Amino acid sequence: MHVVLDVDEVNAMVREQFAGSRNRCLELGHNYAVAEYEVVPDDIRPGGFVAGPAQFALVDSALWFLSFVALGRIEPMALTSELSIRFLRPAQGERLFCRATLEAVNRRSVVGTARVWCDDRTDKITSTAQGTYAVPLPR
Amino acid sequence: MHVVLDVDEVNAMVREQFAGSRNRCLELGHNYAVAEYEVVPDDIRPGGFVAGPAQFALVDSALWFLSFVALGRIEPMALTSELSIRFLRPAQGERLFCRATLEAVNRRSVVGTARVWCDDRTDKITSTAQGTYAVPLPR
Amino acid sequence: MHVVLDVDEVNAMVREQFAGSRNRCLELGHNYAVAEYEVVPDDIRPGGFVAGPAQFALVDSALWFLSFVALGRIEPMALTSELSIRFLRPAQGERLFCRATLEAVNRRSVVGTARVWCDDRTDKITSTAQGTYAVPLPR
Amino acid sequence: MHVVLDVDEVNAMVREQFAGSRNRCLELGHNYAVAEYEVVPDDIRPGGFVAGPAQFALVDSALWFLSFVALGRIEPMALTSELSIRFLRPAQGERLFCRATLEAVNRRSVVGTARVWCDDRTDKITSTAQGTYAVPLPR
Repeated sequence: MHVVLDVDEVNAMVREQFAGSRNRCLELGHNYAVAEYEVVPDDIRPGGFVAGPAQFALVDSALWFLSFVALGRIEPMALTSELSIRFLRPAQGERLFCRATLEAVNRRSVVGTARVWCDDRTDKITSTAQGTYAVPLPR
Repeated sequence: MHVVLDVDEVNAMVREQFAGSRNRCLELGHNYAVAEYEVVPDDIRPGGFVAGPAQFALVDSALWFLSFVALGRIEPMALTSELSIRFLRPAQGERLFCRATLEAVNRRSVVGTARVWCDDRTDKITSTAQGTYAVPLPR
Repeated sequence: MHVVLDVDEVNAMVREQFAGSRNRCLELGHNYAVAEYEVVPDDIRPGGFVAGPAQFALVDSALWFLSFVALGRIEPMALTSELSIRFLRPAQGERLFCRATLEAVNRRSVVGTARVWCDDRTDKITSTAQGTYAVPLPR
Repeated sequence: MHVVLDVDEVNAMVREQFAGSRNRCLELGHNYAVAEYEVVPDDIRPGGFVAGPAQFALVDSALWFLSFVALGRIEPMALTSELSIRFLRPAQGERLFCRATLEAVNRRSVVGTARVWCDDRTDKITSTAQGTYAVPLPR
């Protein structure tokens, strides 16, 4: 299934249905999605680092966008079943990026792996995660 | 190690050092911690549910507070190493609560289990998680 | 759903359908299951500890038994979707035990938390885990 | 750190110190390790599939070998801290393989991602995992 999804359509859906999300879709490929996030002062936790939950939220968005790619359609009701994240090094920077890569898709779920980095330091990932998204069952 | 930690002191530290955190410590016991969170409209994702990342942030706070309990001191630099979360049912309500329970502590890390519920529905947990917090090494 | 399942029937199914399993069901309650395992020399890894995979296998069995409890029937095709495990302290002993507790069940999956200990040291858990088991979809 | 580790030396250590392990090191690169496993009848669970714990054991070995690569030395006491695994499709075949890739290493831990496949079906991974290995602290 190699339907081309449109980044602008994804972002329009997010703005309309989930206005509170601060994460933006940046790129969609046939088996990956990239999301970005602009760090705000409220994200900074003791030590001066971007808090884990801000990274988690970005990962969750990137994997959500990945599930659209895997399903070949924008599916807002693809819900996170489970997500495990590992924090690898302190995150410092103005923008965070996350690339999510498809591991498998079947009629029940989408599984992907995600990596987060700051600014242009693509080789210094600050966290990595794997997660499962439940595909809505046909009614 | 059964040092009694003070809830108000924990919340004062959070307000001072991590002003962006929207989670509050509610209770500290010798092997558990309870945190709470007031849902805001920005947390609502498609379907009308509280988004996963808001639940994750609450879990992360509760486990952070738990690590203070386990260490017998308020230790802001106890950092999340890894956290895995499972979303069990839709979360709807005005306030979220999370209870984190200690599984083990050693000189390197604290491990706990957390459960989230909405309002007074303590028997309908919306997510459950386990995580590891790294204890700062002596310099 | 509080169907009483029979420990002997569960063990008979395991012996018949999964003869290679070295884990035995010990107890079934309305929201928990206990499994046990006899350590063999092949399980001992460097340092003299019971290897992680032997503990994982026991956890996987206990959560499998728990899914029978949650579904109210012996359902061999309840399959592990995902499992995350944390190793807390060295495991040494002749028998391992695992207690799995139900977190949630719906028509798609069963989620539980598990704790492993050695011999009679129930208060010194050597590993803890959470996992999701997929319920077979009706055909 | 790009010390070249020798596959035969790794397998000799495993045979000597962890005779019960049924997993073999196949290849070591500067940021990856590959392990293999020959399926035996005892591994087959209901449905005719290779059981999850056999796959977990292979993943655990591959990540252990990866930690040697990351540390630049054969370090039998690199211990699994936590491992989360997702089962993606039924595993059927005579041999299982696992490739583990390095995500990060620091003085406390090694984190890697692993993928398992059967026989020559490298594009049909049956499970994927991420895990953390604790580096022994200097005494």
